[in-house]
Amino acid sequence: MKLAFKLQDIVGILAEGTIEGGTDEPITNIAALSKAQPGDLAFLGNRKYTPEVKDCRASVILLFDDYEGVPKPGQAFIRLENPSLGLARICGAIEALLWPQAEPGIHPSAVIDPAASVDPSAWVGPHCVVSAGAKIGPRTSLESGVHIGREVVLGEQCRVAPRVTVADFCQVGDRVRLHPGVVVGADGFGFETDKGIHKKVPQIGNVVIENDVEIGANSTIDRARFSSTRIGEGSKVDNLVQIAHNVVIGKGCLIVAQAGISGSTVLEDFVIVAGQAGVTGHLKLAQGSVIGAQAGLRSDTEAGGYYRGSPAIPASLQHRIDILNKRLPELFKRVATLERNTAG
Amino acid sequence: MKLAFKLQDIVGILAEGTIEGGTDEPITNIAALSKAQPGDLAFLGNRKYTPEVKDCRASVILLFDDYEGVPKPGQAFIRLENPSLGLARICGAIEALLWPQAEPGIHPSAVIDPAASVDPSAWVGPHCVVSAGAKIGPRTSLESGVHIGREVVLGEQCRVAPRVTVADFCQVGDRVRLHPGVVVGADGFGFETDKGIHKKVPQIGNVVIENDVEIGANSTIDRARFSSTRIGEGSKVDNLVQIAHNVVIGKGCLIVAQAGISGSTVLEDFVIVAGQAGVTGHLKLAQGSVIGAQAGLRSDTEAGGYYRGSPAIPASLQHRIDILNKRLPELFKRVATLERNTAG
Amino acid sequence: MKLAFKLQDIVGILAEGTIEGGTDEPITNIAALSKAQPGDLAFLGNRKYTPEVKDCRASVILLFDDYEGVPKPGQAFIRLENPSLGLARICGAIEALLWPQAEPGIHPSAVIDPAASVDPSAWVGPHCVVSAGAKIGPRTSLESGVHIGREVVLGEQCRVAPRVTVADFCQVGDRVRLHPGVVVGADGFGFETDKGIHKKVPQIGNVVIENDVEIGANSTIDRARFSSTRIGEGSKVDNLVQIAHNVVIGKGCLIVAQAGISGSTVLEDFVIVAGQAGVTGHLKLAQGSVIGAQAGLRSDTEAGGYYRGSPAIPASLQHRIDILNKRLPELFKRVATLERNTAG
Repeated sequence: MKLAFKLQDIVGILAEGTIEGGTDEPITNIAALSKAQPGDLAFLGNRKYTPEVKDCRASVILLFDDYEGVPKPGQAFIRLENPSLGLARICGAIEALLWPQAEPGIHPSAVIDPAASVDPSAWVGPHCVVSAGAKIGPRTSLESGVHIGREVVLGEQCRVAPRVTVADFCQVGDRVRLHPGVVVGADGFGFETDKGIHKKVPQIGNVVIENDVEIGANSTIDRARFSSTRIGEGSKVDNLVQIAHNVVIGKGCLIVAQAGISGSTVLEDFVIVAGQAGVTGHLKLAQGSVIGAQAGLRSDTEAGGYYRGSPAIPASLQHRIDILNKRLPELFKRVATLERNTAG
Repeated sequence: MKLAFKLQDIVGILAEGTIEGGTDEPITNIAALSKAQPGDLAFLGNRKYTPEVKDCRASVILLFDDYEGVPKPGQAFIRLENPSLGLARICGAIEALLWPQAEPGIHPSAVIDPAASVDPSAWVGPHCVVSAGAKIGPRTSLESGVHIGREVVLGEQCRVAPRVTVADFCQVGDRVRLHPGVVVGADGFGFETDKGIHKKVPQIGNVVIENDVEIGANSTIDRARFSSTRIGEGSKVDNLVQIAHNVVIGKGCLIVAQAGISGSTVLEDFVIVAGQAGVTGHLKLAQGSVIGAQAGLRSDTEAGGYYRGSPAIPASLQHRIDILNKRLPELFKRVATLERNTAG
Repeated sequence: MKLAFKLQDIVGILAEGTIEGGTDEPITNIAALSKAQPGDLAFLGNRKYTPEVKDCRASVILLFDDYEGVPKPGQAFIRLENPSLGLARICGAIEALLWPQAEPGIHPSAVIDPAASVDPSAWVGPHCVVSAGAKIGPRTSLESGVHIGREVVLGEQCRVAPRVTVADFCQVGDRVRLHPGVVVGADGFGFETDKGIHKKVPQIGNVVIENDVEIGANSTIDRARFSSTRIGEGSKVDNLVQIAHNVVIGKGCLIVAQAGISGSTVLEDFVIVAGQAGVTGHLKLAQGSVIGAQAGLRSDTEAGGYYRGSPAIPASLQHRIDILNKRLPELFKRVATLERNTAG
């Protein structure tokens, strides 16, 4: 971050807390208690780190109300009921300062089709393309080099980062964030093979992204064969994730980096797919199920179930197998001993 | 899709079939029998779904010639020898309407080096770059923000989506489709380490992509150390795939999403590498071999062989091991019982 | 490569070696001994390939000083103490010819904020964006469509390929190479879940990339929650790699394609993470540790340790388990035999 706060500014952002001691040092960074230097703000978010406070060199420390101790010279304590919440407020204030709402307008280098509609409160940055029939909603910003295809609808207050592609006919809700390099609406991977020739199956559906979704950098979400690939409201997708054609993701799901979901699979609400996991096609993942990192899921899940391994099985069984696997050398020896003894 | 067809239009596209019943509803969507609504076209592609026809609410249903039953009021049946083929024809017609051949021309914001050559029938979209010595073939279209490096050759009727990079000296055949964010010709990952310093090994080869290849969104294909990394005719590569330097892929191969092929490995024709599989370097995958999802292949394959697991082994053996793995807790108990019994 | 060298040119580049025989053929390619054709240069880098020399058709062959044999008509031998080093020199010379230092300047289509600073010796290519407060160092080149965010610092002699994004506030050292589609500084994947709503945790830190780092195509490096995600001096990152927020990578590390490192994990110097491996968050990988391909690391490592498997364990143990796993069918049979025998 490139900001400097005075103690006063921080107190102002918090709008609560008891101050003890003081500092003239401008605060330019947030750091862990054990690593903080003068000029840093540190925080005691978890009581197990309480002993670290007394050696902490931060200029400002957010603490629990009942912390026993006093600040060092040139150091300020701010006592709060919930220091983590206080930190979140400060971070939110910094975020708003670092990334203010873009000024409305259209950069002269952007190419807007005459048949597109851009809300007057939206921002379209340099080298963006907005194609025929596309609609850009209020206060949505396209940062730079963004490609918006024909008939695409983007809702309000979306933030679209550099080099994002939203291909023809896709629909994006409100407050959606698309990080750099995201591709929404490339063709699904569908071929029919006839005598060794892979003939393309037309992919004539689209992608629908509901409100409050976030998609991480360079992730790819393919358009449906027909109808729609869908990412449900409030779901969050990390970087380099692959979501294939006709996948339907429910509300509040989390898909972690480098995971892949194959075609036509349905995720009910609040499903979690951890990093590098793979889910095969045409499955149904019931509400709240959790697929562990690097798991390879090949069958439907039960609501709230937790699955691990490749192929994935219930995590508790996989956990026992992981332990027993390490004991295989021992088991082979025990069987050999038994064989010697029973042969004797 | 953003189109509306009348029953007449559909019959016209099919150019065959027996019509029964009728509908005035404009057809705006294609849906599964069990989910279709008025305004949808549904199809019976697989006889096992025959019972679903009688409750299907679609306005038009494609059926087998010999289907026993009659349409509901306001519903049309179209009887065909091969309803799946009929559907493919309709989808193809829709695709051609949704994505017509681009008009020839060069957008004024594109930057074309005077020493590049663009066929008069090609389209170069906004913010594209075509570098010195590059050749863009007839009816090829570059959608937007595409980077074509120096001396690159693109054949005819290629479709290059937004934000694709084809780096210097690479060659692309005819009818190749590159989806958004594809990177062809980045440097291979080659370093020689001397006293902890990784010195770059120059990557002075290129990438050759043969005719009728399709590469999925954000996939990366590295240039060769020298000579060429090659993707053979008619091979199809899904999204987020990594193909390393000097890999040679034969004809008609399928490489599914998030798979990775390490340097100098050779795939003969019709090899399939499933999703998230990894193949180490300097291997030879014989014709028609299949590498399962998430497999980790470390040795050459036999023609037509099917491999699974990490490290990958013949799939039939891996399948037995998967089953026995789940029985490990039981096996440990059985061995303990044997030990008690023989000790007794 | 698109160059043609005469034998004289090659001798000039090598600046050493004994020539025997000769050729008028222009040299346009480098090839393996067994595949070389007239017009190719081949090399004997490893003595085990010595027998291949006598049938090699290359026009020029680099050989060991003591090779016993004579060139064919129209073929030149160049005898060297270290043919591999000779080859490296030739490749380096070709690389310098193929990719010369860009001419200084700013393409008229680039958008440079008045509050940005671009060194007069730098090159900013077509459709690049350099935002307010950014600094582009001497002899650094931005190829095309590059997005440089606000307050970003790029050092000297960096090569930034097409479609790279370096987001606001990130810092990049000297001689750094960023391949096409790289995303530096997207938001980390941080949410706090309250009653099923995933609330975004502000990501207000940045990314710091030290000198001599190389990042492969379409890889993503997230900005820190606060403070910095860091890639240490001389580390090399391959394609499609995910590096999460607050990861700290030491000097001289190698991260191979499609690997992923989760949040806040620390890699000490000279760590190797092989292809498709995943490392969970908040770990410490001690100096020189090696994580095998497709491994799933869930715990800290020891210096120099080698780990494999998912979950990862010491490689020697995993190796034994891999072998014993294939013998599980046999083990089950042996136990069944024992049970029959002891029951008898």
